[in-house]
Amino acid sequence: MKRIFYVILLSISTCCIPLFAQHKEKIDTAVVSKIKQEGLNRSQLMGMLSMLTDVHGPRLTNSPNYTKAAEYVKSTLEGMGLQNVHFDTWDETFGKGWELKKFTLQSLSPVYFPVIAYPKAWSPGVKGTIQADAVYLDIKNEDDINKYKGQLKGKIVLFSLPTPVKPGFTPDASRLNDSTLLQMANSGASEALTARRFQAATEPQRLAWLKWDLCQKEGAVAILEASPATRLEDGTITVAAATVPYPAEVPNEKRLRAYSANAPKILPQVVVAAEHYNRMVRQLQQNVPVKLELTLETAFTNASPGFNVIAEIPGTELKDEVVMIGAHLDSWHSGTGTTDNAAGSVVMMEAMRIIKTLGSNPRRTIRIALWGGEEQGLIGSRNYVKRVLGNRLDKTYPYDSIRLTPAAEKFSVYFNMDNGSGKYRGIYLQGNEAVAPIFRAWLKPFEKMGAATLTLRNTSGTDHLSFDAIGLPAFQFIQDPLEYGTRTHHTSMDLYDKAVEADLKHNAVVTATFAWLAANRDERIPRK
Amino acid sequence: MKRIFYVILLSISTCCIPLFAQHKEKIDTAVVSKIKQEGLNRSQLMGMLSMLTDVHGPRLTNSPNYTKAAEYVKSTLEGMGLQNVHFDTWDETFGKGWELKKFTLQSLSPVYFPVIAYPKAWSPGVKGTIQADAVYLDIKNEDDINKYKGQLKGKIVLFSLPTPVKPGFTPDASRLNDSTLLQMANSGASEALTARRFQAATEPQRLAWLKWDLCQKEGAVAILEASPATRLEDGTITVAAATVPYPAEVPNEKRLRAYSANAPKILPQVVVAAEHYNRMVRQLQQNVPVKLELTLETAFTNASPGFNVIAEIPGTELKDEVVMIGAHLDSWHSGTGTTDNAAGSVVMMEAMRIIKTLGSNPRRTIRIALWGGEEQGLIGSRNYVKRVLGNRLDKTYPYDSIRLTPAAEKFSVYFNMDNGSGKYRGIYLQGNEAVAPIFRAWLKPFEKMGAATLTLRNTSGTDHLSFDAIGLPAFQFIQDPLEYGTRTHHTSMDLYDKAVEADLKHNAVVTATFAWLAANRDERIPRK
Repeated sequence: MKRIFYVILLSISTCCIPLFAQHKEKIDTAVVSKIKQEGLNRSQLMGMLSMLTDVHGPRLTNSPNYTKAAEYVKSTLEGMGLQNVHFDTWDETFGKGWELKKFTLQSLSPVYFPVIAYPKAWSPGVKGTIQADAVYLDIKNEDDINKYKGQLKGKIVLFSLPTPVKPGFTPDASRLNDSTLLQMANSGASEALTARRFQAATEPQRLAWLKWDLCQKEGAVAILEASPATRLEDGTITVAAATVPYPAEVPNEKRLRAYSANAPKILPQVVVAAEHYNRMVRQLQQNVPVKLELTLETAFTNASPGFNVIAEIPGTELKDEVVMIGAHLDSWHSGTGTTDNAAGSVVMMEAMRIIKTLGSNPRRTIRIALWGGEEQGLIGSRNYVKRVLGNRLDKTYPYDSIRLTPAAEKFSVYFNMDNGSGKYRGIYLQGNEAVAPIFRAWLKPFEKMGAATLTLRNTSGTDHLSFDAIGLPAFQFIQDPLEYGTRTHHTSMDLYDKAVEADLKHNAVVTATFAWLAANRDERIPRK
Repeated sequence: MKRIFYVILLSISTCCIPLFAQHKEKIDTAVVSKIKQEGLNRSQLMGMLSMLTDVHGPRLTNSPNYTKAAEYVKSTLEGMGLQNVHFDTWDETFGKGWELKKFTLQSLSPVYFPVIAYPKAWSPGVKGTIQADAVYLDIKNEDDINKYKGQLKGKIVLFSLPTPVKPGFTPDASRLNDSTLLQMANSGASEALTARRFQAATEPQRLAWLKWDLCQKEGAVAILEASPATRLEDGTITVAAATVPYPAEVPNEKRLRAYSANAPKILPQVVVAAEHYNRMVRQLQQNVPVKLELTLETAFTNASPGFNVIAEIPGTELKDEVVMIGAHLDSWHSGTGTTDNAAGSVVMMEAMRIIKTLGSNPRRTIRIALWGGEEQGLIGSRNYVKRVLGNRLDKTYPYDSIRLTPAAEKFSVYFNMDNGSGKYRGIYLQGNEAVAPIFRAWLKPFEKMGAATLTLRNTSGTDHLSFDAIGLPAFQFIQDPLEYGTRTHHTSMDLYDKAVEADLKHNAVVTATFAWLAANRDERIPRK
C-alpha cells in the first residue's frame, strides 16, 4: 500500500518539480532577522554541548548518566522559562540500565601494550582482573569448529576475522557539493524505509552463531571482536550493544536484548581497534602465544521504563495546536555521543531559547522533545507517538489501519535533527509535495547561507519516522556529512571536538525559524 | 663553507639539468629482471615486518625489545647466508634502557572513562596506583604562575594548552603527483640541514620552563600534555621522550636527556589524545572537579653503549671496497615503529635476501647496517661513521676539517630508507650532480613502475647524513608520503597495518638493484 503510494508520488513528482515555484507563503522577515541575531551572535549552544557530552556523556538509555543529562536538560529548559518541563515516562518497560565502572585490556606477552578497546554496552563484567591466553577462531567453515573443541575453557577468544586496514586516501570530512545537492533536488520520493525487509540467513551469520555457541559451551571467559571494516581506522572503534549473533531464521521476538529484564546470560564482549586486533591475530599466526589481562567491571540497574524530556512554549490563540521539534538525547557509550546526538539535542534546546528571546509567544504551542531509546529502535519517540498521537493497528497495511487521537488532529508538524554536526543545506520532504512551496519560502532567508535545497526523498533511521509512520508531517534537514559516516557515528571518537560550532549555530537558527513560522502560519502543515 | 658550496651548486644546477642525458652507464638487465622476479613474486618482507613490529615492536633504543628485535634480525640475516653478522657496539655510552611495564589512565569523575594516553619514553613511574585531582595550568603569562602556588601538591597537572581539533577535510594518505615530482626534478640543491640553527628563546618556551619549575617545586605527581597540534587527531597520539622544557638559552650540553646515565630527576610525563585532554580541560572550566587514576610502572636498565646490527655479502675481486645499505632499527614506543622504521629495516633485509638469491657474489662487498639511536640524534650511524670512516674535527667548518680513514677511501656509497612505507618515486641527489647520469640509468628499469625522478635536493633527518657529513656519497629515495607525515610518524598509530605491502616490495627491488649495480660497476660512486 505504502509502496504503491510512493510509486504514484514518484510519477507525479517528475512533472511537478517545475511547479515548486514561490508560493504566497508569508514570512515575518523581522522575526527571522531577530532569530539570526540571537542565534549567531549570542549563542549558548556550545556550553550546553559541553555539559551534555564532556560532563554528562555518554548517555546510554536508562544509564545513570542519561538521567543526569536529562536532569541537566530539564533544569536548563526551566531556566529558559519553558513550561511544562517534565520527564515523559514510557508506558512499557525498556530494560536495564548499564554503566562501565572500570575497564582495561592489556597485552602481557609477547610484548606489553595497552590495547585500544571498548566493551559493548550491557556486556557483563568479569570477576576481578583476569589473565588468560588468547585464541583466534580461524573458522572458515563448519568443520573448522571441531578444531577448537576442548581448547577454549578459560580463554579470551578473538572471535571475528581481522579487519583489513587501508591508507586513507579520501578525507574523513566532506560537505555536500552542488552536484550532490542537485541530484537530491531532482530526485523523486524514495521508497519509505520503515518496514524491515526479510533477510535470508547468510552463511557468515550461521557460522557466527556456531562460533558463539562453541564459545559459550566451551567456557571461554570473554570475546573480543575487531572494530568492523569501514573507513573507521586509526584506533577508532565502533561499539554498540552486546548481542547474541542469532542466525537470521530466529524470529525477532526470540532475540532477547542484552538490556531486557529477562536477558539471557551472555559472555563479556569487547570491541578492539582493528590495528590492535589484527596485531594479536598475526602474533598468534606467527605461533607466538598471546597473553592478555582484562579488567571489566560493569553495573546494571533494575529494568524500568525509559523516558523522554519534554517542554513547551505555550501558544496563544491556537495553543491546543502543536508544533514539535526534537532529537534523541540517548547515545552509544564509547565516546560521549556528541554528533549522535548531543548535537541535535542542543540545536533543539538552543532553538527554544532563541524563540523565548523573541519577546512574544507563538500562536501555536511549540514543544521540544528529547527522546530516549532511539539507539535501540526509536523507542522513546514511538512510545510517545503511540500514547499521544495515534497508532497503526496493523503493521502490514499501515495507512489503512492508522487510528489517530484527538491530539493528532491538532498536531501540525515535527522537525528532527540526527545526522551529526553538519550544517543544514535544505530539507527532506519525505514524499510530501504539498509542503514544498512552504518550506521553499521558509528557506529563502537561508539561501545565501547555503541552505536552499528541497528534495522529495525520504530520510530514515531516526525519530521523525515515528510520526511519519502514522501519516503526520515529520521532517529532517539535509546536512553536510562532515565526519559523521566516516569517523564519529557510534564510535569512540564521537567526542565534543568533532562538533563544528558554526554549523550547529546555523542549524539552531534555521530550526527556530521553521518552528516559529510553523507555529504562526494560518494553517497547520499539510499531510501526505 | 658548506653554505657557499651549495649556493654554487645551486647556480650550476640551473644550467646543468639539460645535461642529465642518458650516460653510458652499463646495466645488466638480466640481473635486474631476476631481482624483480624474486622481490615481487617471492617476497619475504611482510613476515619479517610482522616479527619486527607485532612481536618485537616497539624497539626503543637500548630497550629489552630492541635487543630482541636485533637478535631476530641477526638470526634472520644469518639464515639468509650473510657473513660477519654482528652487533656493532658503539664506543660510547648511550644511556639507560627503558620499558613500559604497566599503564592505565582513567577518569573517575565526573564520568568514568578510560583515557587514551601514552607515557613518554624514559618517564619515571608512579608508586602503585594513584588517585589524584587534576589541575589545568591556565597560564598565559608569568603573573598567572602565582595563582597555582600551594595548589599543585599531589595533583596531576594538565600542563599544556588544549590542542585545537578540526574536521579532516584533507586525506591522511597521498601519493606524489606529476606536478610535485616535476618541481623536484627542476629544483636545485637545497641548503644542507645538518647544522643546528640558533634559536632565540621564545616566550612560550620561557613560560613552559616556569610552569615546569612550578610543578616540580610544588610537588605535582604527574604531568599530562595534549598530543600536539597537527592533523593527527581521532585519538592518535604523538609521543617521544620525556624531557625538561629548558628555555632556549640553556646550552645543549646542559640539557641532560632522560636516558642519560646521570639524568636529572623528572616528573612522570604522559601524552593524552587531544580529544580526551580537551575534554578534561573543559570539565574543569565548567567548574566540575576532575579525578583521575593513574597506574604507571616503568623499568630502567643500566646505562650502556647502544649497538647497530651489521652484516655483509662479501665481494669478490673488489671485496675491500664497500657498498652499504641501511635503515634504523630503533623506534619510538607508543606504536610498534612500523613506518618509522621497521619498513626501512625490512626493505634493506629483503634487498640483501634478494641479492643472495642471484647466485653469485658482487664484485664489491655489500654491507647492511640497521642502526640504533637514530631517534635520539642519528647516534648509531654517527658513531659507526666516526669509528670506521672518518670524522669532522671542527663542526663549524666541516669540509675543511674532515679526516677520512683508509676504509673511507674504499667506500663507495650508502643508501638509506626512512620516510615511511611509501613507494620510491626517484632519488635525492643530495647536491651531488655527478651521480645524476648513473642513477638515471639505474632508474630506467623502474620508470614504468613510477620511480624515475632525480632531484638535486637534499633530504635530511636521518642516517645518510652521518655519511654525507664527511663527504661520502649517501642517499635516500624520494618516497610517496602515504600517511607518514599525517598519521604514523612518532605516533601510537605507527602499526603494522599502516605499511603498504606493494610499496615495500617495490622499494626492496629498487634497493637491491642499486646496491648490486653499485657493487658491480667499474668505478666507485663519485663524491661531491
